[in-house]
Amino acid sequence: MHILVIGAAGMIGRKLTSALAKAGRVRGRDISKVTLVDVVEPATAGFADETRLALDVSAPGAVVPLIAGRPDLIFHLAAIVSGEAEADFDKGYRINLDGMRFLLEAVREEGLKEPYLPRLVFTSSIAVFGAPFPEAIGDEFFSTPLTSYGTQKAIGELLLADYSRKGFVDGIGIRLPTIVIRPGKPNLAASGFFSNILREPLSGKEAVLPVSRDVRHWFASPRAAIGYLLHAAELDTEKLGWRRTLSVPGLSATVGEEIEALRRAAGDRIVGLIREEADPTIVRIVSGWARNFDAKRALSLGFKGDASFDDIIRSHIEDELGGKVG
Amino acid sequence: MHILVIGAAGMIGRKLTSALAKAGRVRGRDISKVTLVDVVEPATAGFADETRLALDVSAPGAVVPLIAGRPDLIFHLAAIVSGEAEADFDKGYRINLDGMRFLLEAVREEGLKEPYLPRLVFTSSIAVFGAPFPEAIGDEFFSTPLTSYGTQKAIGELLLADYSRKGFVDGIGIRLPTIVIRPGKPNLAASGFFSNILREPLSGKEAVLPVSRDVRHWFASPRAAIGYLLHAAELDTEKLGWRRTLSVPGLSATVGEEIEALRRAAGDRIVGLIREEADPTIVRIVSGWARNFDAKRALSLGFKGDASFDDIIRSHIEDELGGKVG
Repeated sequence: MHILVIGAAGMIGRKLTSALAKAGRVRGRDISKVTLVDVVEPATAGFADETRLALDVSAPGAVVPLIAGRPDLIFHLAAIVSGEAEADFDKGYRINLDGMRFLLEAVREEGLKEPYLPRLVFTSSIAVFGAPFPEAIGDEFFSTPLTSYGTQKAIGELLLADYSRKGFVDGIGIRLPTIVIRPGKPNLAASGFFSNILREPLSGKEAVLPVSRDVRHWFASPRAAIGYLLHAAELDTEKLGWRRTLSVPGLSATVGEEIEALRRAAGDRIVGLIREEADPTIVRIVSGWARNFDAKRALSLGFKGDASFDDIIRSHIEDELGGKVG
Repeated sequence: MHILVIGAAGMIGRKLTSALAKAGRVRGRDISKVTLVDVVEPATAGFADETRLALDVSAPGAVVPLIAGRPDLIFHLAAIVSGEAEADFDKGYRINLDGMRFLLEAVREEGLKEPYLPRLVFTSSIAVFGAPFPEAIGDEFFSTPLTSYGTQKAIGELLLADYSRKGFVDGIGIRLPTIVIRPGKPNLAASGFFSNILREPLSGKEAVLPVSRDVRHWFASPRAAIGYLLHAAELDTEKLGWRRTLSVPGLSATVGEEIEALRRAAGDRIVGLIREEADPTIVRIVSGWARNFDAKRALSLGFKGDASFDDIIRSHIEDELGGKVG
């Protein structure tokens, strides 16, 4: 089992490769070879046969040699995040759209030489949906993204489905909820504050809340996200038909509920580190985001999300803070 | 008012340019200049200032000089049809996806030099929908195309919305129903038989019906299609928000109802020219197609379809056959 991870240096990429290294097996076979790729060279995940490469997936031909190695399982996690794709229109389309298309084309071209049908797990996003929408978005609701990032992900879903239908790839897409608590430093995603207001106080630092407490949103912990990806790698895609992308079961919660879970985990002093300071730009962007989903299909296919925000905070304290708060 | 029509040599393109020439005005202004483009040089439509060009829109840079002329209104009708896009994967993506993207990029680049916001009317298709779906597809139903053509059109819709949202173009997309009765010769569209079984008998020729009579589908006459396009050119796009593509009000009918309308218009002898000969490939393709729509939004925006199949046949006899049958 040869696995290629594109976007391996990102937060999800690092956690995924660690989880794969720990498991040692996937799809019933031992992991014999791993190729880790990102725009910067990814850190080692400790595999015996491990290739690590710095590569721009949006450069024509760049992914061709990777696919020539005929990986059995590909995770395509690489993306320019929403804030950056909105600010740099060309870069967003280049990485998020052209990069996906080059990858699919490389797989197709490889298969034209000799039969080849790798499983491709693609991370899409709930940003494919744009307001107005129902309180809970169902499995058949249409994609009307309100960001270029969401547009690029929606196009990626369509391409994945068409290349799968034509028998060029065995694709599955999952629409990741907003990941909380993102470890490390803030990135350019407009959704960063959902993590900041928990992560920073838990480390004894101040954080700014730019929206009101009644804002509702759709969340998954890093642990749940890795769980979705591994389940997508294992799933019998026959069950998907040609509808290859799923909204996975996240957790719907308000910012106020986030904060109350923080209070239960870490007390009033920690919650006091959150400073409310409205940012009209963030307020406007967030008002167009999905709040809740009815993820029936993914649930019926065995995908599992977080049970509560208390669980999300607990897993962060365990995984990132060595069990200690403040 | 300078108008650019891309795909002007096709059936819809010819009828549209004729209608524009007849009207002489659009969006409250006289038509002063027209540029007609297609992969073959379009025929004249009789405008005083008329440029006609043979051009491959999917060649990088090809549309740039057209956009440098800063047309106020652009109709983008050019496409590789469903059957051909399915048979020639590369060609379909090149014309239907890259062609659309080159056009949008050319408009954006022109606007970066000096403010420019042309109205762009894009013909999408009901092929963006794929079974299973409800008996009548609503305005918020998701796009799960079952052809590469449908995929390319769905991507075109997403790009149109994003470029409009960013203020690069004033876009509107309309999902054309299957056009009946297409005049002229059959093209490579798998939907051709819906027209063939009417057009050929009306001219005294045999036609093959490759599916059963209970197949239901979604139709518009060429007259109705031109009406949608002209209405889309005139519409106040503020009313659309960022949801820039509409399913227009077509006519839902079965093949049996088509045939009974033909019988009313032309009698049993003409209906007798239809030979039933099942084609499993066509049956399979058609089974994935939309049957009916609930086009509330387009109706509320003033789009109008055909009242009955009798009307569709009558308009064909008037427009194409000089009033004579058989």
